[in-house]
Amino acid sequence: MSTTIDVPESSNVAKGKAIAVAPARPGGWKKGVAIMDFILRLGAIAAALGAAATMGTSDQTLPFFTQFFQFEASYDSFTTFQFFVITMALVAGYLVLSLPFSIVGIIRPHAAGPRLFLIILDTVFLTLATASGAAGAAIVYLAHNGNQDSNWLAICNQFGDFCAQTSSAVVSSFVAVVVLVLLVIMSALALGKR
Amino acid sequence: MSTTIDVPESSNVAKGKAIAVAPARPGGWKKGVAIMDFILRLGAIAAALGAAATMGTSDQTLPFFTQFFQFEASYDSFTTFQFFVITMALVAGYLVLSLPFSIVGIIRPHAAGPRLFLIILDTVFLTLATASGAAGAAIVYLAHNGNQDSNWLAICNQFGDFCAQTSSAVVSSFVAVVVLVLLVIMSALALGKR
Repeated sequence: MSTTIDVPESSNVAKGKAIAVAPARPGGWKKGVAIMDFILRLGAIAAALGAAATMGTSDQTLPFFTQFFQFEASYDSFTTFQFFVITMALVAGYLVLSLPFSIVGIIRPHAAGPRLFLIILDTVFLTLATASGAAGAAIVYLAHNGNQDSNWLAICNQFGDFCAQTSSAVVSSFVAVVVLVLLVIMSALALGKR
Repeated sequence: MSTTIDVPESSNVAKGKAIAVAPARPGGWKKGVAIMDFILRLGAIAAALGAAATMGTSDQTLPFFTQFFQFEASYDSFTTFQFFVITMALVAGYLVLSLPFSIVGIIRPHAAGPRLFLIILDTVFLTLATASGAAGAAIVYLAHNGNQDSNWLAICNQFGDFCAQTSSAVVSSFVAVVVLVLLVIMSALALGKR
């Protein structure tokens, strides 16, 4: 062993990896994954912001009213939709704040630290986004179809625009969820294969 | 560089890690993580199975009826609850099938393959479990509180047992979700730090 001490170990490791994975450019595919990560993150920001904004502006007042009632539906009629707006805004905010770490991942594709940080927080916010998207979908489904056994009538006949807007917000949140799942899987692959 | 070739690189790498992380037993903490993974997986199986079974057996018939109606609520009154039972059973089935891979992780704590396989599928089934848990929670919330603007009345006054049973199923599914998040984070840490 004493004859090998003067060779720095890090260069040894990097050389071994370069031979095993990418002969031409050392770690080139990891840089590709990091760039893809950044691009997907931008897409997820757009989807999450779009979901929050679409849901947050959903509001419909019917053109007829009785002496006591004016018929109005907006996102804050439903606690679930309020939760949806808040969590989607949180997810979008987190994704914006995560962009610098994604850039660090592009500059230093072999650093495990930022990738580990991102995969853990991505998993947490994936759970948050999925929860709000699925809860919103359950309510949207009820608004469209109603439920006989509990005597909940479908409201989409009256509040058509409201239903269309909340439905598209839910679809947009599912896009964000799919992108977050991809981000977690890509980070796991980049962490696992060295 | 040519003087260093006769030293096998793998032992060199393993030595560097043993010094950095665990001086006594090389990779001992990884074995601990793998054992923890197995135990947590057993807990998640219990939670997911419990959630599916509790929801699947929820059924309440009221002791009064009219000429045309008998008032009954069961999980298949609500599409969301049917989805809940199916997905929770799927998640429990996946977790049972994942146990052998977790055991492989205990026997070979440094193998990245099974861990990578598990973290990717864990992420997918985490999303599935979160979606069904959150959708179930949205319906349970409506059943408890109703919604004024859409004129959906709370049904928990009449169907008290049904509500209690579905609520506990949702709580059980959230336990499974938390455990799955922990599993993903632990796998990520074990993959990232070598």
